[in-house]
Amino acid sequence: MDFSSKLLENAVNEVSRLPGIGKRTALRLVLHLLKQPKESTKFLTEALNVMRNEIKTCRKCHNISDTILCDICANPKRNTEIVCVVEDIRDVMAIENTAQYKGVYHVLGGKISPIEGIGPQNLQIESLVEKVRSGEVKELIFALSSTMEGDTTNFYIYKQVEKYDIVTSTIARGISVGDELEFADEVTLGRSIINRIPFENSLKG
Amino acid sequence: MDFSSKLLENAVNEVSRLPGIGKRTALRLVLHLLKQPKESTKFLTEALNVMRNEIKTCRKCHNISDTILCDICANPKRNTEIVCVVEDIRDVMAIENTAQYKGVYHVLGGKISPIEGIGPQNLQIESLVEKVRSGEVKELIFALSSTMEGDTTNFYIYKQVEKYDIVTSTIARGISVGDELEFADEVTLGRSIINRIPFENSLKG
Ligand SMILES: [Zn+2]
Ligand SMILES: [Zn+2]
Repeated sequence: MDFSSKLLENAVNEVSRLPGIGKRTALRLVLHLLKQPKESTKFLTEALNVMRNEIKTCRKCHNISDTILCDICANPKRNTEIVCVVEDIRDVMAIENTAQYKGVYHVLGGKISPIEGIGPQNLQIESLVEKVRSGEVKELIFALSSTMEGDTTNFYIYKQVEKYDIVTSTIARGISVGDELEFADEVTLGRSIINRIPFENSLKG
Repeated sequence: MDFSSKLLENAVNEVSRLPGIGKRTALRLVLHLLKQPKESTKFLTEALNVMRNEIKTCRKCHNISDTILCDICANPKRNTEIVCVVEDIRDVMAIENTAQYKGVYHVLGGKISPIEGIGPQNLQIESLVEKVRSGEVKELIFALSSTMEGDTTNFYIYKQVEKYDIVTSTIARGISVGDELEFADEVTLGRSIINRIPFENSLKG
């Protein structure tokens, strides 16, 4: 692309670094901002900067939070003995949206993926195993996406916690294998949590 | 969506104000920024703010520019007697990319669209007519998209300039009716400029 302005070119380049945003889309977005009042760009960039600089990760579950403990972990009505293991905050949002689940979460921050260079040490696995070791957990619910990486991650964690006296389960899949949690409808996802099955059974299946 | 963080929610809301970006895509983009170093967000937001606050519009052609006159208008090798009328800067970029055109441009900033509430007074039409009136223009090439709004805009301008002694033409369309200029391939678009036809002929056609 041949830009008539370095300022425009630079803005388009930065926007097109975002995943799934090509140069053409970036140009469309940037030209939109140019047509809007300057305040639009100010509000957008301030919201991003404040978020990036001030957002916290919950000390207990690693969920994204504005405070040291997230609202879920800080809620005395939640059952802290049941821990749902998820990849990222979008899965927490999807499950919370069903209003079916009363336990807490543990956000791993991803899945084990040798191809992408993500090993167990890059994820919040050690802190999960430590929670189990300390005896505060009675049940772990694996709610990772049922992809190869999800299964690998489930199994890796399972091998480290099976010696402890806890129940392990995976969410029942009414949704098709390979589907991402965040795209499941609320009813199906809510039912999957309620009908969770012992993790050992999922291995046999 | 039920966010665990007001900062996150606010950022997602701002990003989803951009055209074609839904809440889900916005969340994906924002979570991406959270995984990247803080510098990524800093560079992105700085580029947008600097652009929005410092970018200029070329005094002559209304093209986006970092200087008072854009590079095209400031180039003594360009023929200022031939003026190509386009909707926005993306069309300038598309035509410049063909390296076929040696005239200059006039960027209207949109098309007449009663539905979107865009009238002639919202576009750079008066300054174009003034250019023609002053005698500095020998040929106007209409290169708006061949939609209803594009045709309306062409005709509106044509009626105001037909009394002056200039040639009016529209770009020859090797590309199908309704296609946007920016999506045309360079060869087709270059040929369309070279083979432009008198505007009166396009009315008869
Ligand atoms: Zn928490
Ligand atoms: Zn110019």
